[in-house]
Amino acid sequence: MEGSPPTAGAAAPEVRDLGPLFDPRSIAVVGASEDASKWGGDLAARLLRSPAGRSIHLVNRKGGTVQGSRACSSLREIHSPVDLVFLAMPAAGFEDAVDDALGVGARAIVVVTAGLGELGGEGRERQRAAVERVRAAGGLLVGPNCPGVADTTTGLQAVALLDIPPGPIAFVSQSGGVGDEVVTRALDYGQGFTRFVTLGNQADVGIADVLWSLIDHEETRLVALYAEDLRDGRRLAAAAAACVAAGKPVLMLTPGRTEASSRAARSHTGALTSDSSVVDAVCDAVGAARVDTPDELVELAVGLLAGRRARGGALAITSDGGGHSAIAADVATAQGLTVPRFSEALRARLAGLLPVNAALDNPVDFAIASVDPSAHATIGRTVLESGEVDALLVTGEFGYWGARFPELAGPGDGEMRAALDLAALARDTGVPVVVSTVNKGRSPAVETLLAEGVPVYREIGSAARVLAGLARGSAAEPGGLPDLPAPSAEPVTADGYWAAREALSAHGIPFVPARLARDADEALVAARELGFPVAVKAMGLLHKSDAGGVVLDLAAPPALLAACEELRRRLCPTALSVERMAPREQGVELIVGCRQDARFGPVVLVGLGGIYAEVLRDVAVALAPVDHARARRLLEGLRGAALLQGARGRAPLALAAAAEVAAALSRFAAAHPEVTEVELNPLLVTPDAAVALDARLVLAPPASQT
Amino acid sequence: MEGSPPTAGAAAPEVRDLGPLFDPRSIAVVGASEDASKWGGDLAARLLRSPAGRSIHLVNRKGGTVQGSRACSSLREIHSPVDLVFLAMPAAGFEDAVDDALGVGARAIVVVTAGLGELGGEGRERQRAAVERVRAAGGLLVGPNCPGVADTTTGLQAVALLDIPPGPIAFVSQSGGVGDEVVTRALDYGQGFTRFVTLGNQADVGIADVLWSLIDHEETRLVALYAEDLRDGRRLAAAAAACVAAGKPVLMLTPGRTEASSRAARSHTGALTSDSSVVDAVCDAVGAARVDTPDELVELAVGLLAGRRARGGALAITSDGGGHSAIAADVATAQGLTVPRFSEALRARLAGLLPVNAALDNPVDFAIASVDPSAHATIGRTVLESGEVDALLVTGEFGYWGARFPELAGPGDGEMRAALDLAALARDTGVPVVVSTVNKGRSPAVETLLAEGVPVYREIGSAARVLAGLARGSAAEPGGLPDLPAPSAEPVTADGYWAAREALSAHGIPFVPARLARDADEALVAARELGFPVAVKAMGLLHKSDAGGVVLDLAAPPALLAACEELRRRLCPTALSVERMAPREQGVELIVGCRQDARFGPVVLVGLGGIYAEVLRDVAVALAPVDHARARRLLEGLRGAALLQGARGRAPLALAAAAEVAAALSRFAAAHPEVTEVELNPLLVTPDAAVALDARLVLAPPASQT
Repeated sequence: MEGSPPTAGAAAPEVRDLGPLFDPRSIAVVGASEDASKWGGDLAARLLRSPAGRSIHLVNRKGGTVQGSRACSSLREIHSPVDLVFLAMPAAGFEDAVDDALGVGARAIVVVTAGLGELGGEGRERQRAAVERVRAAGGLLVGPNCPGVADTTTGLQAVALLDIPPGPIAFVSQSGGVGDEVVTRALDYGQGFTRFVTLGNQADVGIADVLWSLIDHEETRLVALYAEDLRDGRRLAAAAAACVAAGKPVLMLTPGRTEASSRAARSHTGALTSDSSVVDAVCDAVGAARVDTPDELVELAVGLLAGRRARGGALAITSDGGGHSAIAADVATAQGLTVPRFSEALRARLAGLLPVNAALDNPVDFAIASVDPSAHATIGRTVLESGEVDALLVTGEFGYWGARFPELAGPGDGEMRAALDLAALARDTGVPVVVSTVNKGRSPAVETLLAEGVPVYREIGSAARVLAGLARGSAAEPGGLPDLPAPSAEPVTADGYWAAREALSAHGIPFVPARLARDADEALVAARELGFPVAVKAMGLLHKSDAGGVVLDLAAPPALLAACEELRRRLCPTALSVERMAPREQGVELIVGCRQDARFGPVVLVGLGGIYAEVLRDVAVALAPVDHARARRLLEGLRGAALLQGARGRAPLALAAAAEVAAALSRFAAAHPEVTEVELNPLLVTPDAAVALDARLVLAPPASQT
Repeated sequence: MEGSPPTAGAAAPEVRDLGPLFDPRSIAVVGASEDASKWGGDLAARLLRSPAGRSIHLVNRKGGTVQGSRACSSLREIHSPVDLVFLAMPAAGFEDAVDDALGVGARAIVVVTAGLGELGGEGRERQRAAVERVRAAGGLLVGPNCPGVADTTTGLQAVALLDIPPGPIAFVSQSGGVGDEVVTRALDYGQGFTRFVTLGNQADVGIADVLWSLIDHEETRLVALYAEDLRDGRRLAAAAAACVAAGKPVLMLTPGRTEASSRAARSHTGALTSDSSVVDAVCDAVGAARVDTPDELVELAVGLLAGRRARGGALAITSDGGGHSAIAADVATAQGLTVPRFSEALRARLAGLLPVNAALDNPVDFAIASVDPSAHATIGRTVLESGEVDALLVTGEFGYWGARFPELAGPGDGEMRAALDLAALARDTGVPVVVSTVNKGRSPAVETLLAEGVPVYREIGSAARVLAGLARGSAAEPGGLPDLPAPSAEPVTADGYWAAREALSAHGIPFVPARLARDADEALVAARELGFPVAVKAMGLLHKSDAGGVVLDLAAPPALLAACEELRRRLCPTALSVERMAPREQGVELIVGCRQDARFGPVVLVGLGGIYAEVLRDVAVALAPVDHARARRLLEGLRGAALLQGARGRAPLALAAAAEVAAALSRFAAAHPEVTEVELNPLLVTPDAAVALDARLVLAPPASQT
């Protein structure tokens, strides 16, 4: 499966039974040692502490006593069936251990051992061969090169050196270290996990397999993953879409935005990192949220688990200090939120509640909360009940009094009441209420907020980022994950410009009128048919523009004949394409292209072309095929969309026609996996039409077309 | 001073003696109460704990005993001189208390009391009148509406409800709440303050005054400020520049990037927030760093206090885990840093130090640090000694073993040695070494790093942001803060288009050739002199383009005459300007403008014009006047600079000529404070020249010209 792009049907579920992994009746640890700072030793000690009802077998080459229990010297000494085997011995013993595990009936094998596939070459081959035997026996293999698996809903704690706290999050990670950090951060918020799975080299079980197991997993309320290699990407995307559809937000931490992080990923687990813009497109399509760090992952998870999304980006900010609220307004706006002015009516209502020195507009500065913390809740309720905003951010020093003067009854009690009132306000209105305070985690009122499901952050930047996340895509892009059509029965076999023109024209892509000519005389006939001025292009060159194989703006026969002669002398073209000059000055040039992504299959890109491409670097990417509406949204989402929509009094351009071309090209690419790249550059969009002025098409090398 | 833009000479120091504020021999607190949760009560209790050698007087209306000490019922009962008086009584008694304070010889008065200038109107007038009396008596006033002042170098702890820990940072804040947060964050890093000053309404002492006092303050190694109202901005900027020149980094937290935060600021302390892009320009000019939140302020302060700046943005990342290093590479790149590939030679040296499964390129994934933490230092040294990077980021789980297994001697000791080695590496190379680890603050090795001056952050985002800060402007922009020239002896008195053309042409701004014509006949004569095609503009209209008062591309006399007639009929212009058509298609249109900023005086803006202005929103701002080199850097710094430099095979444009025009316009604006706005739009830049095609000039209303 690895390396071959997905084809039609690859998105079908193919759900594997991970029961033996998450809820085994009996477990063995091979490589169980006495040293609890080593993975094998810690796993042994950890599993021995398992709740009753699960039999645990330790295996150590030397037998004897390990962690206070008797150890076998080989799996073969165990005479009862073992569901799940952890392999933590040196890599040299890998094959024998796998065979022994299958011999005792293991249905799941977790290979903790490193030094296999991630080294490439022979290690990868050893890993592949073992997976083949495990699959043939109907089993599954996790790893190699991973610290383990936990399922707090079944009492399985088997991640080396890490306690997994219980909670509603399922986390799947290729990296043990990142998993460690995510657990540490989650504990700061009192959050925990249903399932926690590290996958290492993903030799067999991949992220998609785990995601499919989570869709119906009742205790799991949110799914998060850390992945460097997204593998069978369409299948993963389909699983993520199904999780979102089942009401479980999906968070993706997937490095690879930069060339350097791809380098890190490639060398880490032999992973090929997916092109980052494609990952963004997948997240848009399925309604998953992409995050950049473990902190952001946990912060957003905490926000999403509160269960309230914002209808839009309009934010109210209330604070017990004007400095904090001014900073919050800046930070929130930088995150794409708005902090709109309140209506006269709302300002009047607030004036009735606040002292004369308070700021009554958004952001609201109470100026009294240090005396009366209940203002946090009463003002918040007045603001939210106005319906003028989509979310509330309470910032400043909430919880100050309880943290600073635990002995003072008045203000501390007021804060506790305000915490309960804020939680009730969020529940009553269904609107996100988020608190940012310097006193997080040290104040009873703050602990109350967290316990009542109101997210509290210590940094205003975190709070603003989460609020932006709650306002963004609460659902999949309309249309969601597109289905892949069956490959066309008539694959494309030629890749020259003229062949591309013909293939694409047949699929409804409009080109500027052109005639093929063998020589200057035929060119002249063609030009007279088309009407001057014309352009002439030399055929049979890979990059005809770069080679000077295109001559534009030939206004009359002498110029045309001279150009043909010059091209013949310099480039010996196989033929000439004579084309009617397009009215470039009346329009904007786009690039529209498709390519086959190794992980996610066909993707489509639209962007501004010509000089704008250089300056704006402004493109949008989506999984192909896209329909007309999706193509139009891609175009409208470009930063430079104003150029298409008639900026500065220009006539609006034929956006619908451009969208139709992009949709048609994406359908073509989706049905032609043998076409690895196809591009219209430029696609000229005028007020009346969209017409391709040039095309490029690349076929897969014959070997991989079989 | 308030509201009047700075003029020549305003940048002169005018250093005020703040000695009575920071090192008073005797102090009185008016409004000292028994309740230590109130500002007056806490200040009294706090000052009573002062080190010996300073006499403290408490004043409470009722006299008696307060906080265990005898209180006077009035300042007038004190018969020895009092240097510094804190006023924390209700606002009603403000004037009497000020007069009494001056009566006992107070040289500094800190007004904690709120309810004065921040309410506007009468409150502002009361405040102004009091300041007048204090200044007349040779004293100074801090506040009103602020929690106090501390100077740990003199043992003065007088910020209500807040202990100021000692350390090398001086912090000046308009907001008490933000000050509170900054102290809390600094404690996380074991950092503290020399001077900590809250200024509230800044009725007398402003941020600039405090900054001037810090330039020669030996114990202060870094200056940070929170300001909503930058007041006398050029004087503040000059003080900041002097701090930077004295080797003290300056950090500015100044909300107002958005309209909503400006609203918050205006209503907070009656402040007028400076236009945010001007603040950025000031930071560039003086070499200060702008930050967005208290967290970022403290994080960057910790990084800068380590005393090592990066020569450039090339970063090496080393990690004990590939996941962490991949994430770090993404986050660092998003901050504008680069993570360059290592040379073959360096990779070969690393291969000799690392196991076969390590990643040898940048980022480096040790794959062994969990076993041998000393790799953190040995790899770091090899990388830095190559000279291939400007800074080192160590990420992952440094400090893990000491935090997790304090009882295990081996790995924990290795981490301690690695911490000392990393600190030595930073000292030896003078290159920034920054650590990001999930284990911050819980591990002896991490505490060692912090104590040895190696910044450690808990979040990779913080570490990357600080590294970007260390790579950015370690010094002021060449040329620094420009001097303001004396106002021109010949102020501009007319603001029509033709008057602007004449005034600006006289100052060396090239305009497209034009002639003024009274009617169509004169216009025809003018056009023949200039040569067709021409444009014609109707004079005497404020927005001639919007009103349809400009007709372009008149190729021959009939078209010109028709256009003149049409303009006459529709607009009744006072005159016509006939102008030679400029070769717009050969160039790019810029906007170049200047305006008088209320805080910082003349500023200059350059940006792409026409359709690009719409799409790119791409402008650069600097304090005026700018010289040719600075103007050129502004143009080259535009996102769309490629358009000027000859993108996609176009001829490069006359950047030098455009820079000269911008410099000339900025000199004009600096010498003409009566011109509140002046703009060339467009300034056409072709391969050969820069020429203004239109101009606009706005004069201050006569009243404020006096």
